[in-house]
Amino acid sequence: MHHSSCTVIFAFMQYETTEKLKNTELWIFDADDTLWESALYFRRAEEDFLGLMLSLGFDPETIRNEVHSRDIERLSVTGYGVRPYINTLKSILAEHVTALSSYLNDSIDYISNSLLHHPLVLLPEVISTLEKMNICGKKMLVYTMGEDDHQRDKFNRSGIAGFFSDIVVVPVKNENTMKELLASFGTLPERACMIGNSPRSDINPAIECGVNAIYLKRSITWQAEQTEFAEPELVTTVTSLSEILPLAGIE
Amino acid sequence: MHHSSCTVIFAFMQYETTEKLKNTELWIFDADDTLWESALYFRRAEEDFLGLMLSLGFDPETIRNEVHSRDIERLSVTGYGVRPYINTLKSILAEHVTALSSYLNDSIDYISNSLLHHPLVLLPEVISTLEKMNICGKKMLVYTMGEDDHQRDKFNRSGIAGFFSDIVVVPVKNENTMKELLASFGTLPERACMIGNSPRSDINPAIECGVNAIYLKRSITWQAEQTEFAEPELVTTVTSLSEILPLAGIE
Repeated sequence: MHHSSCTVIFAFMQYETTEKLKNTELWIFDADDTLWESALYFRRAEEDFLGLMLSLGFDPETIRNEVHSRDIERLSVTGYGVRPYINTLKSILAEHVTALSSYLNDSIDYISNSLLHHPLVLLPEVISTLEKMNICGKKMLVYTMGEDDHQRDKFNRSGIAGFFSDIVVVPVKNENTMKELLASFGTLPERACMIGNSPRSDINPAIECGVNAIYLKRSITWQAEQTEFAEPELVTTVTSLSEILPLAGIE
Repeated sequence: MHHSSCTVIFAFMQYETTEKLKNTELWIFDADDTLWESALYFRRAEEDFLGLMLSLGFDPETIRNEVHSRDIERLSVTGYGVRPYINTLKSILAEHVTALSSYLNDSIDYISNSLLHHPLVLLPEVISTLEKMNICGKKMLVYTMGEDDHQRDKFNRSGIAGFFSDIVVVPVKNENTMKELLASFGTLPERACMIGNSPRSDINPAIECGVNAIYLKRSITWQAEQTEFAEPELVTTVTSLSEILPLAGIE
């Protein structure tokens, strides 16, 4: 009997979530790794940096650990972004190699450029989902963290900018930035829905503000972004963006 | 007894190879995937292209097979190079999508730029090996296939250009281009040694010309480059460039 009452409660909560989401006036989308590939390019940059250090005789696993621990330290100070990340790599290189040859300077510059100007690859179902949401008159925003110019450049290259009312870029996403976002668009929390792949930056701050949250579960997510959900019973998990269509009342 | 006589013959051949290599006057190095990473960046470009096609709803495995079969067809016509490879991707895209949006054109351009301007990452032991060879007065060449401007750009960025007497770029490497190379440097085949990671383009043409060959075995090699050795008993296999030092009589 216990099992079946759980099922009933779960089914009721699902129904409630679905009903709540149908009243959504503002659909807020994370960008990196929700709409397009991003962590993949940081992983490639790291691979290149480890290769570069290996060519100089340094053990890749030792360097990888240095990059990861420095990166976590740095995030709380500089926020997210390509340039702060590259600065981390440069400072690790400078600590190991006293005289930087032009080969090394060039290589770091090329790693940096590859990361700033990577191809814009949309995730599966993004185009078709946004098209349908747009046709049905849904108001949609992009809300992302990182460097303003770099994030807007990706947004403009993405070919999907026309589906959104606006893009908002902040250095770090948290409860305060979410509250400011809602205030600036004059939207009540329960009439907004946040869609993203990061438990830390997308889901928990939304839930804590009373905003509905849809978690896009992906195979690659930044290690620093993985955390427990604050209130897992309030989170709807999907594995493809197209699964938000029925939640938004679209068939 | 059979086993031990094989061992004796093998040991004798090894001794002969070592003696022959000590008379080498010209050390000819392949570049891509022998001195620096290259196939890795083609693999990334392919991954991005498949992601792009997936964002439009096309099955990545079907597209991957198309890219591979087209690429093999193309090689015999255009030779190796980034631009012919990108043209293959563009023609596959154009066959599947009638109206190319600026998003798609931009993405292909970014894939192309990433491949042309990828970071130059030398392989392990390359710097230290070439330094020692240079100190010992060995005459060394880079002999590579692809597009002249692109290969020279990588050579200049590599930081190791100063160790070599010259770089020679050809569209495809074969027995004829090897003979021309030897003639232009006035070197007898038995006084030359070719070092490379490709059985098809580096090892077999050298062996067929009477040039000594050292095969650098790597985990990533182009599928089209994998073939049987024409005369396996004449090939010395190494897994790191530093293993050529004792073969060149350097400790």
